[in-house]
Amino acid sequence: MRIALLGGTGDIGEGLALRFARDTDHEILVGSRDPEKARDAVEEYEATLSEHGVDADLKGFANEMAADRADVVVLSVPPYYVGDTVDAVADRLDEDTILVTPAVGMQGDEDGMHYHPPGAGSVTELVAQRAPDEVPVVGAFHNLAAGKLADLEVEFDLDTLLVADDADAKKRVRDLTNEIEGLRPLDAGPLANAAEVESVTPLVINIARYNDDLEDVGAKWV
Amino acid sequence: MRIALLGGTGDIGEGLALRFARDTDHEILVGSRDPEKARDAVEEYEATLSEHGVDADLKGFANEMAADRADVVVLSVPPYYVGDTVDAVADRLDEDTILVTPAVGMQGDEDGMHYHPPGAGSVTELVAQRAPDEVPVVGAFHNLAAGKLADLEVEFDLDTLLVADDADAKKRVRDLTNEIEGLRPLDAGPLANAAEVESVTPLVINIARYNDDLEDVGAKWV
Repeated sequence: MRIALLGGTGDIGEGLALRFARDTDHEILVGSRDPEKARDAVEEYEATLSEHGVDADLKGFANEMAADRADVVVLSVPPYYVGDTVDAVADRLDEDTILVTPAVGMQGDEDGMHYHPPGAGSVTELVAQRAPDEVPVVGAFHNLAAGKLADLEVEFDLDTLLVADDADAKKRVRDLTNEIEGLRPLDAGPLANAAEVESVTPLVINIARYNDDLEDVGAKWV
Repeated sequence: MRIALLGGTGDIGEGLALRFARDTDHEILVGSRDPEKARDAVEEYEATLSEHGVDADLKGFANEMAADRADVVVLSVPPYYVGDTVDAVADRLDEDTILVTPAVGMQGDEDGMHYHPPGAGSVTELVAQRAPDEVPVVGAFHNLAAGKLADLEVEFDLDTLLVADDADAKKRVRDLTNEIEGLRPLDAGPLANAAEVESVTPLVINIARYNDDLEDVGAKWV
């Protein structure tokens, strides 16, 4: 399987690239608006993986090229770029491409981070609205602390919640998630339930801020 | 310490009454709009505790009387009664009474449960607005599955998140929570961060619904 990480030079993209490359046999395509930046990131990720004894062969592309070649396209871009990124790659997607969205709209103030969804109700639903009708959308990897994700020294024991209306696409992302060591996929229902999933992201940031003994907080649902 | 559970005949009230009675030495006052119902619940709770080898002496009162006598008043009522319940007991509270609110506004549809906060931003902030200015308000016990809470056979290993603007009141509720076996209090910041805490409640219900191997789901923040 080919997995494209659009905005794969950002922190969530980095973590997913490293973990997918280490734990799975899938081909990892790092995308960026600037293909040069994507190739620089690939060099850096390969060096990190090599330090951990993993001989990986990632590829860097412009987002459009990465999306064009992939079976699973992860929108690992900041929330305010998500809509434009979907538009930019829309004609490279079809019913066989799964679009995965981990982004969350947040606003910070002196008290902490607050959930700030777009008018569509959630970033996940915004992606579903903007994507071509035939492209299945799955919300996943929302509440993972980027620092922990990108640090291969950290042994995960975390859950991630999936939302999707397309049962087959959800199952494929579930299987893919299961390949990442220590990451358990759980079903949170259809896309309409995405807001409750996304709003955990500002919460884990607040918990990390207000508890001295916790950092890079994630959730286990028990 | 005297702990009043207003609406203590409901499912969250039952669970808190049983756990506080079993795990702490505090005096538990079960409140209800109907004092007869409160006394019936007390008999039932004492019988359950007795089955578990706990010889407890709870008391049942009308909500106003329970609030009047307590150091900590827990608003374990449905979210749409919270405002009226605060109004009903307001003149029984003072700066030495901590008002604790676990209620969450939700709406269900065919997809699942959705967070539905009041205009104040969260039920917790609504309570703070309606309570007399001098009464400290703490949000706590939001995301605990009532079934698990009330089943003393279940050994807890769960977290609960605290929000408050009053550091002393938050510390006292933190200490109190620590007395419940297997329940870890974590700080989620000031009252302004309550919405992100409350919105976990519909989420845990959705997770329980969509994962066959999970029920009465709770959260661990790791």
